[in-house]
Amino acid sequence: MGTTRITAEPGLPFIDIEREFDAPRGLLYRAFVEPELLMEWLGPAKYATTVERMEVRHGGSWRFVQRDADGAEHAFRGVFHGEPSVEGITQTWEYEGWPGSVSLERVTFEERDGRTTVRAHTAYQSVEDRDAMIASGMEGGVNEGYARLDGLVARLKPAG
Amino acid sequence: MGTTRITAEPGLPFIDIEREFDAPRGLLYRAFVEPELLMEWLGPAKYATTVERMEVRHGGSWRFVQRDADGAEHAFRGVFHGEPSVEGITQTWEYEGWPGSVSLERVTFEERDGRTTVRAHTAYQSVEDRDAMIASGMEGGVNEGYARLDGLVARLKPAG
Repeated sequence: MGTTRITAEPGLPFIDIEREFDAPRGLLYRAFVEPELLMEWLGPAKYATTVERMEVRHGGSWRFVQRDADGAEHAFRGVFHGEPSVEGITQTWEYEGWPGSVSLERVTFEERDGRTTVRAHTAYQSVEDRDAMIASGMEGGVNEGYARLDGLVARLKPAG
Repeated sequence: MGTTRITAEPGLPFIDIEREFDAPRGLLYRAFVEPELLMEWLGPAKYATTVERMEVRHGGSWRFVQRDADGAEHAFRGVFHGEPSVEGITQTWEYEGWPGSVSLERVTFEERDGRTTVRAHTAYQSVEDRDAMIASGMEGGVNEGYARLDGLVARLKPAG
């Protein structure tokens, strides 16, 4: 099983996430842009995710809502810059609970011998915004989500 | 006349631009999103700017092309995140000559006693991208453009 590596260098407004998956990159790319797949893995395990919009094109926008068992809701939205593809996805992110704190993410999928390394590099508008995101406990959510993604692609990948 | 202040702190991936204009903020906002106004001031003086697309909404995209007297062309594109308004504009930027180097800009318009301070804060995906932008001579283009914007809003503002 892969482990998720999260890097947040002090004094810089970046977060880097890296994890290797035992699946081809086309499948990983699909898991990032197809609502029915995204809903199965994204975010902390205690939330159910509903993708409300997913327009996969330059200028397309997306929005998803995460609800816990008590009905608490957390919504996120963003737009794609450039045509999303297996070569990579560039998109903005905004947690609607912190309106105005917008970040820019670049996700890439590097395949080698049938395994794919997913790298997500996010630039925040300030080091303070980045630090607040780390302090919010995003690390746990990323780890839980990527672990589910690992299980999802194992189920979906062609029998080898 | 105002002077344009450009700040690029070493080791951080940000560029900050600030300038005060003798005009209300509604006029400054229009100069940033109305193609016929934008074409009059944006960028270095030696280029003629053509705005090819300008969809002023969340997820809307824009593209403009700058041509010099020799016919050399430089194109830029981006998308709006959130509804642009006098409260501010958040948008991505990409110089098509450096594909993949995408940045995220937040422009605000602060009005006080009929004068407006425009602040543009841009976050790049790496310090290297930011440094390359500075090294490209963007400072001269910003200064020339903002000086023309100063003249433009002076012509357009209501007689006081």
